[in-house]
Amino acid sequence: MKPKRVEVLIIGDELLDGRVADTNTLRLAEALSEFNIQVTQRTTILDDTPTIVKEAKSINARGTDLCIVSGGLGPTSDDLTALAFANLGNVQLERDTETAQKIKERLIEHKRPVTENQLKQADRPVSSQILKNSVGTAPGFSFRYQDCLFMAFPGVPKEFDFMIEEHILKPLRQEALPSLKKKSFRSFGLFEAQVDDLLSGLPNKFPSIRLGYRAHFPEIIITLKASPQDEQTLEEASEFVREQLGPSLFSEEEGPFAKGLIESLINSKETLSIAESCTGGFIGHLITEVPGSSQAFNLGVTTYSNESKIKLLGVKEETLSKHGAVSEATVIEMAEGIRKLSQATYGLSVSGIAGPDGGTPDKPVGTIFIALSKEDKTETKKLSLLFGREKNKILSAFSALDLLRRRHHYPRGNS
Amino acid sequence: MKPKRVEVLIIGDELLDGRVADTNTLRLAEALSEFNIQVTQRTTILDDTPTIVKEAKSINARGTDLCIVSGGLGPTSDDLTALAFANLGNVQLERDTETAQKIKERLIEHKRPVTENQLKQADRPVSSQILKNSVGTAPGFSFRYQDCLFMAFPGVPKEFDFMIEEHILKPLRQEALPSLKKKSFRSFGLFEAQVDDLLSGLPNKFPSIRLGYRAHFPEIIITLKASPQDEQTLEEASEFVREQLGPSLFSEEEGPFAKGLIESLINSKETLSIAESCTGGFIGHLITEVPGSSQAFNLGVTTYSNESKIKLLGVKEETLSKHGAVSEATVIEMAEGIRKLSQATYGLSVSGIAGPDGGTPDKPVGTIFIALSKEDKTETKKLSLLFGREKNKILSAFSALDLLRRRHHYPRGNS
Repeated sequence: MKPKRVEVLIIGDELLDGRVADTNTLRLAEALSEFNIQVTQRTTILDDTPTIVKEAKSINARGTDLCIVSGGLGPTSDDLTALAFANLGNVQLERDTETAQKIKERLIEHKRPVTENQLKQADRPVSSQILKNSVGTAPGFSFRYQDCLFMAFPGVPKEFDFMIEEHILKPLRQEALPSLKKKSFRSFGLFEAQVDDLLSGLPNKFPSIRLGYRAHFPEIIITLKASPQDEQTLEEASEFVREQLGPSLFSEEEGPFAKGLIESLINSKETLSIAESCTGGFIGHLITEVPGSSQAFNLGVTTYSNESKIKLLGVKEETLSKHGAVSEATVIEMAEGIRKLSQATYGLSVSGIAGPDGGTPDKPVGTIFIALSKEDKTETKKLSLLFGREKNKILSAFSALDLLRRRHHYPRGNS
Repeated sequence: MKPKRVEVLIIGDELLDGRVADTNTLRLAEALSEFNIQVTQRTTILDDTPTIVKEAKSINARGTDLCIVSGGLGPTSDDLTALAFANLGNVQLERDTETAQKIKERLIEHKRPVTENQLKQADRPVSSQILKNSVGTAPGFSFRYQDCLFMAFPGVPKEFDFMIEEHILKPLRQEALPSLKKKSFRSFGLFEAQVDDLLSGLPNKFPSIRLGYRAHFPEIIITLKASPQDEQTLEEASEFVREQLGPSLFSEEEGPFAKGLIESLINSKETLSIAESCTGGFIGHLITEVPGSSQAFNLGVTTYSNESKIKLLGVKEETLSKHGAVSEATVIEMAEGIRKLSQATYGLSVSGIAGPDGGTPDKPVGTIFIALSKEDKTETKKLSLLFGREKNKILSAFSALDLLRRRHHYPRGNS
């Protein structure tokens, strides 16, 4: 049955002392949103029995009918969730013999001592139901207190995700609840404010659609959500997003940034080689994030020194001395050099000043040149970035691949 | 004055629908822990005035004397924090004229319309104090309700961090509170369970020291904390950690993984070149994360194809056909080839099967070979990894650099 009010209770000192950020709520909320179920509140507390009891009472008193509890089910002395819910219901703890047996077998198999602390993970409040955990030692349990059903899961993300899937999403799916329809769009090359401007007409045009943005550096991700009966409107709103964002939209799927580009190169039986400098290998990394990229990726070099630019890529000494390693003239020769060396269809090159040092009045930190060479022509692009070394490297690498993507994978587009 | 009980109240739908994870609490808690101040509870709620009022009352009723509020101070209609606290205190909202003037000037400067929604960011509950925000538009405010001081900050991480620093940490520092002493140690090459085993004697030996671990893939970070009077014990416990972890400990500072290695190469005037395959450029990326790495990094190549291994690195066709591209024999020739090509002190190479495809019964996915070549000898290492493509790539790259680190930067060590 679809719950009316859902809360999350996160238990653990490590969530409140700066060691760990709770990401379980994020994934739970994302998963529940598919069923149009909203998490109303999240409470994060220390490992302390009276505090857990008190908060559980407050959660019930607020009219919550389902509360997902994360953490406090492990083997150590600060794992107090089972004890706290026994106290809440004024019942005893009892040891689940089947679970205890499994824990024993597992420990013996791994040649580790069978300790009372380990077996404690089989203790559950009387009247609770054990919830199976196939990916870890400690099972969860569900426990009803007055009007609220508490479902306690281990806090380890991998185990928590298994428990959500197994004990919440599967049963919801079996009820064939009308699930929320959703579309995601990934853009590169626009600031969030620009995306916002381009899509400012959407809420008025499609009032039944929920529009959201999320920055996932260096991408901006746009999401549209709609009730099942608004599926047609969702499709129209999606078309509106595609028209407004044009070539800045690079994917409507999850996966590596370079996926569409690499697949498109493989389809057209073309190949790519790269000559990096300030990006240090990061472009190659982005390419090889794509499984099967070897079919399109010939060769990557990172020529950090002038010497290697000359020797390996055939950049002219004169070009380097006249224009410098960070210049349009140099990236052109790098891109042509790597293309010829590797006999690839495309040669892509980057040279720039990532920082924090190395800037000059003419070429401040963040000055980046990109060149893309094909047999018939070589084109270039200059960036002036304002981030630190790490983001400058990442953004330069994405921008270089994006130049080729816009030309190849999305030839209608322009930059 | 040092607060006795600190809570955090996080306001915003986006924190409860799967869009955004709250990381503000993490950084606040980390910062406060330096002063031995613990965050006791965090409550995350939706943008809704009655809910904010109700929760603020509960927070006060629990004996909290300081509550940091994050979010709900922006220009949109769902930014309700100021209104909610006015309701809580049963006072009016008033517009801070100085703040309103600044907002106007800022909008005019950026050629954007001066709207009522924008000006609303200058509205604060009567009797509250404006808290300056130098990095964003909306200032914060502090508001006393009965025994609790609420400090409301913008939720944007950059602005939230400024507010913490300016309005919480600076005043705490001026009181010269005894701050907690802390040491961090970064290890590579051990599982968390192994670190746990090696340090299992620490709590008994040094009962006044708080020991914690954190996995930051692929590193395990160990922290020790002590009260100011236990500084001497902290030093002894640190020595214990160093002895127990030995060469697996690669740094006691923040910064790129390769920092110590690169600095050590620069000091000894030695250089490194790399020949990558399955890591796709990620080793080069790790090296060039270090500012100034160009002094030690000659050349990186990513030879994804057999052809480029032969042509560029001089790997023998016979070696490839007899042993395959993923083999000890091939990585040896790659490492020697890149060392000679670039005339570097060290040649480092990796070849392996990152997955998801390409595995064979002999060489399953996750089989990785590493070679490190110096003029007088070449040594190799084989890994059998069990992750997916992404983590296999990352772990292979770290492992390759770690092999050189243990030989060069930490010559006492062994792997």
